[in-house]
Amino acid sequence: MTIAATTPDEAAAIVRRAAAASALWRTSSIGDRVRALTAVADALDAHADALIDQAQRETHLADGRLRGELLRTSFQLRLFGEVLDEGTWLDARIDHADAGWPMGAPRPDLRRQLEPIGPVLVFAASNFPFAFSVAGGDTASALAAGNAVVVKAHHGHPELSALTTRIVQDALASADAPDGLFDTVYGTDAGVQALKDPAIQAASFTGSIAGGRALFDIAAARPQPIPFYGELGSVNPAFVTRSAAGARGEEIVQGFVASVTGSAGQLCTKPGVLLIPADSGLESLLAAARLPAPAPLLNRSIADGFREALGATASHDDVSILAGSPAAEGDPAPVLLKTTAAALRDDHENLISEMFGPAALIATYDDEAELLAVAEVLDGQLTATVVGSEDDAVARDLIPLLSTKAGRVLWNQWPTGVSVTWAQQHGGPYPATTSVGTTSVGTAAMARFLRPVSYQNIPDALLPAALQDANPLGIPRRVDGVMTTTA
Amino acid sequence: MTIAATTPDEAAAIVRRAAAASALWRTSSIGDRVRALTAVADALDAHADALIDQAQRETHLADGRLRGELLRTSFQLRLFGEVLDEGTWLDARIDHADAGWPMGAPRPDLRRQLEPIGPVLVFAASNFPFAFSVAGGDTASALAAGNAVVVKAHHGHPELSALTTRIVQDALASADAPDGLFDTVYGTDAGVQALKDPAIQAASFTGSIAGGRALFDIAAARPQPIPFYGELGSVNPAFVTRSAAGARGEEIVQGFVASVTGSAGQLCTKPGVLLIPADSGLESLLAAARLPAPAPLLNRSIADGFREALGATASHDDVSILAGSPAAEGDPAPVLLKTTAAALRDDHENLISEMFGPAALIATYDDEAELLAVAEVLDGQLTATVVGSEDDAVARDLIPLLSTKAGRVLWNQWPTGVSVTWAQQHGGPYPATTSVGTTSVGTAAMARFLRPVSYQNIPDALLPAALQDANPLGIPRRVDGVMTTTA
Repeated sequence: MTIAATTPDEAAAIVRRAAAASALWRTSSIGDRVRALTAVADALDAHADALIDQAQRETHLADGRLRGELLRTSFQLRLFGEVLDEGTWLDARIDHADAGWPMGAPRPDLRRQLEPIGPVLVFAASNFPFAFSVAGGDTASALAAGNAVVVKAHHGHPELSALTTRIVQDALASADAPDGLFDTVYGTDAGVQALKDPAIQAASFTGSIAGGRALFDIAAARPQPIPFYGELGSVNPAFVTRSAAGARGEEIVQGFVASVTGSAGQLCTKPGVLLIPADSGLESLLAAARLPAPAPLLNRSIADGFREALGATASHDDVSILAGSPAAEGDPAPVLLKTTAAALRDDHENLISEMFGPAALIATYDDEAELLAVAEVLDGQLTATVVGSEDDAVARDLIPLLSTKAGRVLWNQWPTGVSVTWAQQHGGPYPATTSVGTTSVGTAAMARFLRPVSYQNIPDALLPAALQDANPLGIPRRVDGVMTTTA
Repeated sequence: MTIAATTPDEAAAIVRRAAAASALWRTSSIGDRVRALTAVADALDAHADALIDQAQRETHLADGRLRGELLRTSFQLRLFGEVLDEGTWLDARIDHADAGWPMGAPRPDLRRQLEPIGPVLVFAASNFPFAFSVAGGDTASALAAGNAVVVKAHHGHPELSALTTRIVQDALASADAPDGLFDTVYGTDAGVQALKDPAIQAASFTGSIAGGRALFDIAAARPQPIPFYGELGSVNPAFVTRSAAGARGEEIVQGFVASVTGSAGQLCTKPGVLLIPADSGLESLLAAARLPAPAPLLNRSIADGFREALGATASHDDVSILAGSPAAEGDPAPVLLKTTAAALRDDHENLISEMFGPAALIATYDDEAELLAVAEVLDGQLTATVVGSEDDAVARDLIPLLSTKAGRVLWNQWPTGVSVTWAQQHGGPYPATTSVGTTSVGTAAMARFLRPVSYQNIPDALLPAALQDANPLGIPRRVDGVMTTTA
């Protein structure tokens, strides 16, 4: 790479500056933070052409896809500004003193809010060079929550990381944010060193199961273990009922193929397994589906990993090729493999496994009960999809069962294209994520970088603004157990 | 102990039954859960005399203390019933589809709620044989959240654990809860085996740093790591300003001594370090304080641990005895040790260390700036207390600084006696807890045993009740980003 690896001394200094900046930033007003996030969003938009130009050179992703991703990136910075203003993120709770509290002892005056967790280390992803990288959702939500951020750049796009870092730093400076609030380190060693630095109080990661688990283990083994919010891997199975297959075969195949091959299949929510009725005609539609031309993947290690995963699944005794062909050389072509639901259930450890790239495994079933049997053996997933009709009896069992396996359950839509909203959930049971109670996309992502503090019997003038009697921030609060809104 | 250790086969069967029961219980209605929690609370109250009799025999705690604790235990079971009814715990969010969503892509219909995490393993504590044991707060919050519970009984009160287990199981059966929803295992091996069992999805613990960390490490090393909510250790420092020492010396000494020696000092929020001005007269008041008579500790291992911790601190070069005397034999007598704030700051790793029993370390300071210097070097704490006057300049810096170190910051009250309320926070940075974003006391404790799930584009009839358009549960929800209440 053309950007030099960060030396141990440099990495230590960056974390030290981040810790100092974090101590200042935690006391910043909501207005200060909104101004800073908006300045970063504006700066990204203003530099769109240069950013996209550099991103294309390093990631091979298409111009349109990258422009959409950059729009999403600045949008989510502004959305966290809205979230900050609205104030529910503080989870402010006030319990007034109550001498008659039925616990058997008087209740003191207790007031609780969420406060910044401290400096956050963000491991950037390869496949979203904007939205899950230097200025992505983790950075946005950690800054919004009042913390300094150190990014460990992904080796797949170092120049873009450096360019983005300069843009973010200039924008933060223009908004009078503290020096050192945001910086980037390069190289695996610098990332691991930062993860072990006592000043870092939380880390986030998007990437592979092996890499994420290794970092999770380091975070857990620290003298002071810290939360590690890792989004690792997901197969995102989709279940087509018999009635849906009969009614909308063409539409299902078209939507599925587009979802599998978009961004050359390099999306963490790509539907990697599709269950279809054996006798529905869907199989022949899939076999005849027009697949996109071979396209370069993000980088060589992604391409090697894809070939290996595809090869392992394709060489399974119960698997054959349905469409496309695994290319030994050159850019990978999209491939659809074929097996049965029974094989999937019986050897789920080998067959239900992520192939990060343009491939998926189609599994045929004879009886809709097999859908439940496969759902039952699933590991944790980011998403699970049901393609069905509202009166399908199997849907009534399948949806609640899938909700125990996945963070997001979809109906008649495809899981790629993760919308940034209040109700989004991007994260599921392990190995989808290492932290099952959290999301890395959507407004709830801020909660990862906050911790609760209660204040007991503290005079109004010494309380944080969110907890003062007069509610100077004008935010929704829970008062004596009752949610109050300001609307 | 008179209760046999649970065998490996028995422990496996108990977890298996819990998993089956959890799958049923997660679909229970709010009404079902309220009925079950209320039945358990009623049964505990009905058996109060037998329970307290057994608890006294095994823990040496006083009748009054135990009656208060049992009251708290049934109270919190009922409080979680109120929380369930009110419904904000579901964190229900509805984002309607929006074709003009400014992210650059249409927003789908997304609806998110919190759902049960799965079977929970609760490691019971020794020092609260009711409120942090078999039917304590962890069990109450995990059951309320919709999960089965397996308790690992504390070896200090096995007979009481067995009696409580029978009472809870009978009450749950009377409320038609699923068989196997609640059970108890005995012995360290059975606890570790259950912690490693793939069916267990979260664990909670209250106890020592060494024991808690060992279990945390096991939870983190599982093939599927699970959340481990450990409350380990805390010194709970208290800072007396010069003005407060001058104005209210007697009152401060009385309150402090009562807080240090209550329950023979065996409380996780006992104020173990007190900083006082050197020239204030507080030191001589403390030296002359009337300390309670020696009293038996909970059990031999607690007593041995206390002697060891007290001996280590008392033998430090910068420490002398201010009041009481460490007894080599018999029940431990309350002891106040003495050092300086400068010594505390310089050797905080040895001096700011939990002595679980009736002892505390008094540190004198010359300049109020030393209070900030000591606060700066603190490890994570459950609580930190300021005894001051509202116009103390130091308080304006001390309170925000302590909020970065402790989960609860108090003003002119003492930290023992943890009230169960909506705004309570019992948990702080490591080693106070292994999970800095959570609380084990108060209504927010339920969040530990829930995980978010989003539903995308799902027909109303197939959605969980909390997310259906008509709001059949009548709960507060966030709709298109705006908090709505039903009040």
